[in-house]
Amino acid sequence: MDKQAREKAGLRGVVAGATALCSVGDGHELRYRGYAIEDLAAARTYEDVALLLLRGELPAAAAREAWQQQLAAARVLDPAIEAALLALPAGAPAMAVCRLVADLLACAPDAPDEPEAAAAALLGTMPAALCRWMRAARGQEWPGISRAPSLAAATLEMLHGTAPAEADVRALDVALILYAEHEFNASTFVARVTASTRASCLDAVAAALAALKGPLHGGANEEAMRLISRFDSPAAAVAGVKELLAEKRLIMGFGHAVYKSGDPRSPVIKEAARGLSERHGKQEMFAVAEAIEKTMLADKGMHPNLDFYAAVAYACLGIPTELFTPLFACSRLSGWLAHVGEQRASKALLRPAAEYVGPGPRELPPAA
Amino acid sequence: MDKQAREKAGLRGVVAGATALCSVGDGHELRYRGYAIEDLAAARTYEDVALLLLRGELPAAAAREAWQQQLAAARVLDPAIEAALLALPAGAPAMAVCRLVADLLACAPDAPDEPEAAAAALLGTMPAALCRWMRAARGQEWPGISRAPSLAAATLEMLHGTAPAEADVRALDVALILYAEHEFNASTFVARVTASTRASCLDAVAAALAALKGPLHGGANEEAMRLISRFDSPAAAVAGVKELLAEKRLIMGFGHAVYKSGDPRSPVIKEAARGLSERHGKQEMFAVAEAIEKTMLADKGMHPNLDFYAAVAYACLGIPTELFTPLFACSRLSGWLAHVGEQRASKALLRPAAEYVGPGPRELPPAA
Ligand SMILES: CC(C)(COP(=O)(O)OP(=O)(O)OC[C@H]1O[C@@H](n2cnc3c(N)ncnc32)[C@H](O)[C@@H]1OP(=O)(O)O)[C@@H](O)C(=O)NCCC(=O)NCCS
Ligand SMILES: CC(C)(COP(=O)(O)OP(=O)(O)OC[C@H]1O[C@@H](n2cnc3c(N)ncnc32)[C@H](O)[C@@H]1OP(=O)(O)O)[C@@H](O)C(=O)NCCC(=O)NCCS
Repeated sequence: MDKQAREKAGLRGVVAGATALCSVGDGHELRYRGYAIEDLAAARTYEDVALLLLRGELPAAAAREAWQQQLAAARVLDPAIEAALLALPAGAPAMAVCRLVADLLACAPDAPDEPEAAAAALLGTMPAALCRWMRAARGQEWPGISRAPSLAAATLEMLHGTAPAEADVRALDVALILYAEHEFNASTFVARVTASTRASCLDAVAAALAALKGPLHGGANEEAMRLISRFDSPAAAVAGVKELLAEKRLIMGFGHAVYKSGDPRSPVIKEAARGLSERHGKQEMFAVAEAIEKTMLADKGMHPNLDFYAAVAYACLGIPTELFTPLFACSRLSGWLAHVGEQRASKALLRPAAEYVGPGPRELPPAA
Repeated sequence: MDKQAREKAGLRGVVAGATALCSVGDGHELRYRGYAIEDLAAARTYEDVALLLLRGELPAAAAREAWQQQLAAARVLDPAIEAALLALPAGAPAMAVCRLVADLLACAPDAPDEPEAAAAALLGTMPAALCRWMRAARGQEWPGISRAPSLAAATLEMLHGTAPAEADVRALDVALILYAEHEFNASTFVARVTASTRASCLDAVAAALAALKGPLHGGANEEAMRLISRFDSPAAAVAGVKELLAEKRLIMGFGHAVYKSGDPRSPVIKEAARGLSERHGKQEMFAVAEAIEKTMLADKGMHPNLDFYAAVAYACLGIPTELFTPLFACSRLSGWLAHVGEQRASKALLRPAAEYVGPGPRELPPAA
C-alpha cells in the first residue's frame, strides 16, 4: 500500500464523531474542555481534572471533597482479585494483567455501569492491583492499601512501600494530568466503538486497555525507556540514534498522528522530568534523553511526544518500566469513560466500510 | 444530533481500510474470499472456512488433516484457567468470562502471537472454558474435554455431556460458518484498530470480545431470544411486536448497517432453524419467530439479520441463551484474527479525528 493509501487506511483527519472533551487546535495546542493543559498541569490535581472530564466542569470544594472520599472508598483490593493476581505466571504482560482486573470487576454482580462510578471503581482498584502484583513478582512484602489522599501519592506509596516525597507526588500528578485525555486516539476510539454497540463501561475500558498496549500507542513510553537505557552517554545516544535512523527504524516517543510541529505536552513533562532527574541524581539519563531529542530534531525534524520525557520522569520515580503503560492507562481511565458517556448520548453504531481487494466471485470446488 | 450527523458519527460508508477477506457486494450478498456464503454453508465445515479466512485458500486434504490435529491438540483447559472460572461469582456476564479466558491465555509465557496459532489456541480453549463454566454454574458434572472431531460436535458434547446427533452438529456448523466473518463490523474494526497499534493477537481478540458484547452487535442474538420467548403464540407475537414498534423500541435481530434489503445469511440460518425446530419439537417457537418476521416486514419494511434465526437454532439445540453471543465469538475468532493479519501488513495506525463541540478557550479559575 502506498503512502496515500496508508493515510486513508489510518482514517487520519476523518471525523468519526463529536466531542466536547478536548481540542487539539489544528495540532498546535491541547485543551481539556477549554482549559489549556499547561494551566491544568500547573495548578490542579489529577482528581480535579478527572471530574472536569467526567462532569464537564471543575469541582467546587464540596464536590471535590465528595469525589475524593468516593475514590478513597473505592481503593480496595477484593480478595478474589488479589488471589487471581498472585496466581499469574511470571512474566505476564502488565497490560494483560490490567485487563484481567477490569474483567474481574466486570464479573462482579454489582459492577458499576455509569462512567463516573466505573471510573471510581477502576481508579480505586487498578493501581492497587498493579502494585500488589508487581511487588509479589519482585518478591517484596505488600505494604497494604495506601490511605494517601491522591492517586499519585497512593500509587507511589503502594509501589515503594514508603511515603513518597511531596515533589515526587506532584511530578507524578502532572504526568497523570497530561495523560488523562487525548481526543480520538486509538484506545479512546476503540472505547467509543465498543460503547456504540451498547456494551458496558467496563467492556469499553477492557477494549481500550487492549488497544493502549501497542508500542505505537501507549506502549511507546516503555519502548522509549528501553531506548534511553541503551546509552550511557549523550555521545553514545547521538551515534546510536543516527544508526537506528539509517536503518529506517522508528524511534519510540517521537512523532504524533496529530501534532506535526511538537506535542504541547512535551515541554511540560520535560520540565517535570528535569526536576526529578536533579532530585534523584539522574542527570545523566536526562542528558541522554536530550541528546536523542536534539538528534531527532536535527536529522528528522521530529519532536518528542508525551511518552518520551514521561519515560524519564517515571524512571526517576523508580517506577519499573513494565508499569509505564499501565500507569498511562490508570490516568486515561477518566478520559475513556468520559468518552463512553458522550458516545452513549450519540446512539450511533460505529461501523465503517471496507474496500474489497480480494478474489472475485468463484465457484466452490468439491471438498478434497 | 440529527439523523445525518448520526450517520456521519457512525462512519457508515466511510472506507477505513482494505480487506481481501469478505465482500458484501453493495449490501446484497456475502462472500468469503470470493466464495458465496450459501455454497460454503452447504458444502464445507467451519474448520475449512477458518483456514480459508486465515490462509486465503480452502485446504487440500493434507492441510485440513494437519489443521484438525492442531485444533484437537489445542482443545485443553489449563488448570489455572479452570480454577479462575470456578472462582467467578454467580451471574458473571458470559462475555466478560470470554475476555477473562483470552486474558489468561495472554498472560501465559508462551502466548501465541501469529493469527493462525492464536486462532488455534483460542478455538481450542474458549469453547471448553465456556462449557466448563456453564456446567459448574448450573451444578452439572463436567464430562471433560471432548475428543469429537469438530468445534461444533465438541461444543455440543461438552455442553450437554452426551454425544450430539449428526443433524444437530451439522446445523451448528452452518451457524458457525455464517458467523465466521463479516467485514468491518464493530468488533472486527476494534480488532483492527487494536492491531494497528502493534498490540498482540490476543490483545486484538480481547478488544473485539468487548465490542461484540453490545446488544446492537453480537448481543443481539440473546436479545432476540428474550423477545421470542415472551410470546406463546404467533398471534401474541404479532400484537406484542406492534406494541413495541408503537413505543419506538428496537426489535433485536432486525435491521443491518450494511444490508438494507435483507441479510443474505438469514435465509440459510432460517432453514437450519426450521429443520431443528421440527426435529426438536419446537415448531411453536419457530412459528412465533416467523410471525415476528412477517410483522417487521409488513409494518417496518425490515428484514431479520443472522442473529434472529440463529437464536431459534441455538435454542432448539438446547444452548443456554447467555452462551449465544460467546458462541458467536468463538466462530468469529477466525475472522478477527485473519483481519489482524491484514491490518499488520498495512502498518497504518488507525487514528481518526473528532469534531470539537465543547467550550472555547477559557481561563483557569483558582482552585476553590
Ligand atoms: C505516532 C505515529 C504512529 C504517528 O504516525 P503517523 O501520523 O501515521 O505518521 P507516519 O507513520 O505517516 O510517519 C510519517 C513518516 O515519518 C516517519 N516516522 C514517524 N514517526 C517516526 C519515529 N518515531 N521515528 C522515526 N521515523 C518516524 C515514518 O516512518 C514516516 O516515514 P515515511 O514517510 O518514509 O514512511 C508515529 O510517529 C510513530 O510510530 N511514532 C513512534 C511511536 C510513538 O511514539 N507513539 C506514541 C504516540 S503519542
Ligand atoms: C443493526 C443496526 C444497529 C443498524 O443500524 P443503522 O444502519 O445505523 O440504522 P439506523 O439506526 O440508522 O436505523 C434506521 C431507522 O430504522 C430504525 N431501526 C433500525 N433497526 C431497527 C430495529 N431492529 N427495530 C426497530 N427499528 C429499527 C431506527 O430506529 C431508525 O429509525 P429513525 O430513522 O426513525 O431514527 C440497527 O438496525 C439495530 O439496532 N438493529 C437491532 C440490533 C441488531 O439486531 N443488531 C445485530 C446486527 S447484525
